[in-house]
Amino acid sequence: MTASFVARILARDLRAVARAISKIENDASDASDILKALFPHTGRGLTIGITGAPGAGKSSLVDKLAAYYRTLEKTVGIIAVDPSSPFSGGAILGDRIRMQALANDPHVFIRSMATRGNLGGLARATVDVVAVLDAAGYDRTLVETVGVGQDEVDIVKTADVSIVVLVPGMGDDIQAIKAGIMEIGDIFVINKAERDGVERTERELITLLEMSERSDGWRPPIVRTVATQNKGIAEFVAAIEQYAAFRQQQTASLVRRASIAENRLVESLRERLLRRVLHEAFAPGQLHELAMAVAARQRDPYSIVEDVVSRVHIAKSEEQEH
Amino acid sequence: MTASFVARILARDLRAVARAISKIENDASDASDILKALFPHTGRGLTIGITGAPGAGKSSLVDKLAAYYRTLEKTVGIIAVDPSSPFSGGAILGDRIRMQALANDPHVFIRSMATRGNLGGLARATVDVVAVLDAAGYDRTLVETVGVGQDEVDIVKTADVSIVVLVPGMGDDIQAIKAGIMEIGDIFVINKAERDGVERTERELITLLEMSERSDGWRPPIVRTVATQNKGIAEFVAAIEQYAAFRQQQTASLVRRASIAENRLVESLRERLLRRVLHEAFAPGQLHELAMAVAARQRDPYSIVEDVVSRVHIAKSEEQEH
Repeated sequence: MTASFVARILARDLRAVARAISKIENDASDASDILKALFPHTGRGLTIGITGAPGAGKSSLVDKLAAYYRTLEKTVGIIAVDPSSPFSGGAILGDRIRMQALANDPHVFIRSMATRGNLGGLARATVDVVAVLDAAGYDRTLVETVGVGQDEVDIVKTADVSIVVLVPGMGDDIQAIKAGIMEIGDIFVINKAERDGVERTERELITLLEMSERSDGWRPPIVRTVATQNKGIAEFVAAIEQYAAFRQQQTASLVRRASIAENRLVESLRERLLRRVLHEAFAPGQLHELAMAVAARQRDPYSIVEDVVSRVHIAKSEEQEH
Repeated sequence: MTASFVARILARDLRAVARAISKIENDASDASDILKALFPHTGRGLTIGITGAPGAGKSSLVDKLAAYYRTLEKTVGIIAVDPSSPFSGGAILGDRIRMQALANDPHVFIRSMATRGNLGGLARATVDVVAVLDAAGYDRTLVETVGVGQDEVDIVKTADVSIVVLVPGMGDDIQAIKAGIMEIGDIFVINKAERDGVERTERELITLLEMSERSDGWRPPIVRTVATQNKGIAEFVAAIEQYAAFRQQQTASLVRRASIAENRLVESLRERLLRRVLHEAFAPGQLHELAMAVAARQRDPYSIVEDVVSRVHIAKSEEQEH
C-alpha cells in the first residue's frame, strides 16, 4: 500500500475506492493497513441500514431514497448485502437492474456483497466497506439486506440509522420476524402502502412499538411509502435526518457507538482467531482427517475441540507487563 | 455429571433429556462431558431439517409430519429454531400452540431454541441438542427454522435430510432466496398447494432444479401438500424415507457426514476460541474501555485486533511432538 493510494480513496477516486473494497472482500494482506490509514477520516457520513422481509420492495425504496438524496446534492453509497446466498459466490442483488439514472451518476457508488466461504464475517466486511465509503466522503451510505435473519440484523444494527421495511397484509409468520427485528428499528416504513390492509399493519405495528420503550426515549416513527410511485420518499428522508439529528444531541450517542465498536472488535476477533488457529493448530489435511474420524464415530468432536482450545495461550500485552 | 444421568438420557427419561438440553443451551460446565458420553450412542436416528420463507406453513407441516410418524410408531423429536430473534431471550416459536395431540404424547419431545447473547453458536447448539435426542432414541428429529437466512441454512444443512418449503405465488424477491437455498434442498415441498399459481411455482422450481445437478446423482423430488388439511403428508414421508435409504447406500454418505463434521468442528472452535481469548486477553472492563476509545476515534479497531491475534500462540499437540 502506498500513501498515494490512500490519498486517492480520500479524494473519492472511483477506481481506488472499488479496489480498496475488493481488497477487503478478498481479505488482501494490505487491507488492514488501508483501513488503519482511513480510520481517522471516518465518522463524517451517515450510514443507513435497511432490512425487511423479502418482497417488501427494499430495492426500489433504496433506489428512490438515493435519488432523493441526490436532489439534495448529497453523495450516496449503496451496499446491497445478501447473506442468504452462501453458495452462489456472487451477489444476486448485483444482477438486478438498478435505476439507470443512479448507475450513471458519478456521485453514486453501488456495490453488492455476498457471503463467501466458511469463515463468514460478512457483517465485519460490510462495516469495513462502509468505512471506506465514509472516508471517501460519501455523505449517505445505504446498506440494504435481502432478508431478515441474524446476519442481516447484525449488519443493520451497525448502521447509524436502522430502518425496518414492512408491507401490508403479511402472513402470520411475519409476526415472529417483526418481533425479532422490532428492537433494531429506529424508523419503520410500510412500503406498498397503496395495498389493502395498510391500516391494520400500521395498527399492529403501533401496538408492538408501544409494548417496548427505548432507553434513549426515541419513538420510532412509521412512514408510509409507495416506492414504485415515488410516494412518501420525502417524508422518509425527513424521518432519517430527524433521527440522525436526535442522535447527535444524545449523550447516549457515544454509548451506542461504543456498543457498536465493541461488537465490531468481537466480530473481528472471532474470525481472525479462528483463521490463525486453523492455520497453526492443524497440519494440512489434518482437520479433514479428524472430520472423517468423527463421521465414522471413531473420535468425538468435543474432545478434539477441547484439545485445541486448551493448547491456545495468550501472551501478556506490553501494557499489562508494565 | 454422573453415569446414571447419562443412563437416564439413554433410557429416554424426559426430565433427564430436558435437563441435558438446558445444560447445552446454558453452556453448563458439564455439558461437554455429557455430550462426550452420549456421542457413541448417536447416529441411529434420522434428523430432518425444514426451512423455507416465513408464511410457508412450516409449523403446520412439521406438526402433521410428526403426527404421521407417530402412526408409524416412530418416536419424534421437534426442535423449533428461531435465529431471527436475537433479542427476545425466549423462543417465539415456543409460544405457538402445537397440536394438542402432539403435546400430550409422551413419545413426542418438543423444544424451542432462540439465539441468545453475543457468542452466537445457535447452529452448534442445535447440533448438540439433536445429538441428545438421537442418543435418547428418538427415531426422527425434526428441526424447523423460522426463516431462510444464513443461520437457518447452516442449521438445516447439518441434518440428514434437508427440506425446503415453498408456497405458490411468492413474490419476485423469493427468487433470490430460492437460489440461495436451492443447493441444500434434498426434497422440496410446495405447501398450501390448493392455492392459485401452484403449477407455475412447480414449473419454476423444476427449471431451477434442472440448472443444478447434484454430485451424488439424487434428483430432489417436489411434493405438494396442504398441511392444514393433512393432504400430501404420506407422500412427503415417503420422499423423506426414500432419500434416507438412498443416502445409506451411498459411499457419498461418509463424505457428506465428514463435511458436516468438519463444519461442526470449525463452528465449535470459532466460539470456544473467542470465549477463551476474550477471557484471557482482556482485563475485566478492558474490552469496553477499548470500544469507548474506538468510538471516540482515539484508537483504531484494526490495531487492537491485530495486537490480540499476534499474542495468541498454539502449543504443539502430543501427537505432533512424537
